[in-house]
Amino acid sequence: MAQQERAVRTRRAVLEAAAAVFAERGYAAATIAEILQRAGVTKGALYFHFDSKAALAQGVLQEQITTEYHLPRELKLQEWVDAGMTLAKRLPQEPMLLAGVRLSADLQGRDVFGSAWPAWAELTARVLAEAKERGEVLPHVVPEESAQVFLGAWIGVQFVSQGVAGWTDLDARMSALFKHLLPAIAAPSVLGRLDTAPDRGARVLAEVRRRPKALANATG
Amino acid sequence: MAQQERAVRTRRAVLEAAAAVFAERGYAAATIAEILQRAGVTKGALYFHFDSKAALAQGVLQEQITTEYHLPRELKLQEWVDAGMTLAKRLPQEPMLLAGVRLSADLQGRDVFGSAWPAWAELTARVLAEAKERGEVLPHVVPEESAQVFLGAWIGVQFVSQGVAGWTDLDARMSALFKHLLPAIAAPSVLGRLDTAPDRGARVLAEVRRRPKALANATG
Repeated sequence: MAQQERAVRTRRAVLEAAAAVFAERGYAAATIAEILQRAGVTKGALYFHFDSKAALAQGVLQEQITTEYHLPRELKLQEWVDAGMTLAKRLPQEPMLLAGVRLSADLQGRDVFGSAWPAWAELTARVLAEAKERGEVLPHVVPEESAQVFLGAWIGVQFVSQGVAGWTDLDARMSALFKHLLPAIAAPSVLGRLDTAPDRGARVLAEVRRRPKALANATG
Repeated sequence: MAQQERAVRTRRAVLEAAAAVFAERGYAAATIAEILQRAGVTKGALYFHFDSKAALAQGVLQEQITTEYHLPRELKLQEWVDAGMTLAKRLPQEPMLLAGVRLSADLQGRDVFGSAWPAWAELTARVLAEAKERGEVLPHVVPEESAQVFLGAWIGVQFVSQGVAGWTDLDARMSALFKHLLPAIAAPSVLGRLDTAPDRGARVLAEVRRRPKALANATG
């Protein structure tokens, strides 16, 4: 059991080191040597978990969708907004997410290790379909189409935020994006009840961190 | 006069060659040697117009905003949609535009040669402000904010289209983007009158090309 726990920790340390290096340098320029050095593990330990640089990139991409910041709300659309706003708040601070955004946008490399884009779009489509079943979404909305629009828009908005402000205005830009997309998606009775304020992400994160860990996980 | 015309043509040939090379390889990997070869001009002729690789990139970026595809419409918002939809149609076929998108997204290089992002955002903000003055836009809309949302969204949408479909679905994705943004921007009486169909760009381009050239320029 202690051995298994150690293996889990080693795997995590390697993934986090890989994420930091991929986020900073991109896939092509990243080296296993630098990842090893940052993780502080042996070559054997790294290769026990990941047999190539591509496998490391795949491992990072699989970490992109987590439910630990997901709190159930009365409105399913609020859960969608919360997912986006917490992501906006977390992205600049979490190398794992920065690496996921950078690897997913690597058009040369994604044939080798994949991309988080399909998983992000699928998640959005699923939430919107559920919201639609509950009557929160306008009848003509096609969840898959809206999910693709949101995927493209969110990727571009975070990229422009990186370019012009080093992500410091990402909260404000994501808030503005939701305010611009929701009137085309939400039923009128729901629209006014959604909280899309720029500090929404920070408030939800604080709420998650106040909760006992087991409870937060149970709601995921 | 003939000499001046030749200079204009040489400058254009150099710019188009530079655009093709920047679009394919990006700024860092582009070389003056390859641009010279593609343009079929002498080194002296190139340096007469552009004294560095950065000057070439600046020249390409200055070509991003043209009014030759701008036809006046009854609704100012339709002119905005038309600008976006013709851009979507032209982008995959025009190295000048592809180079502009790629150079503008080069976060390492843009301190050296700039970016078309501010000019794109300004153009959108100006059109939306004019549409607002005419009562086509909802009263609470802030043109600069909507312009920034559109800038980020359009950049991401074209990037996702490139990544998943080599830009072949850009028409459909831009159409979906406008359909998702306009309810947050357009006055209800205007919304239903806007043509945002995927083939809108192709139809406007055909219309421009049918027009006598002088007339099309006069309306720009």
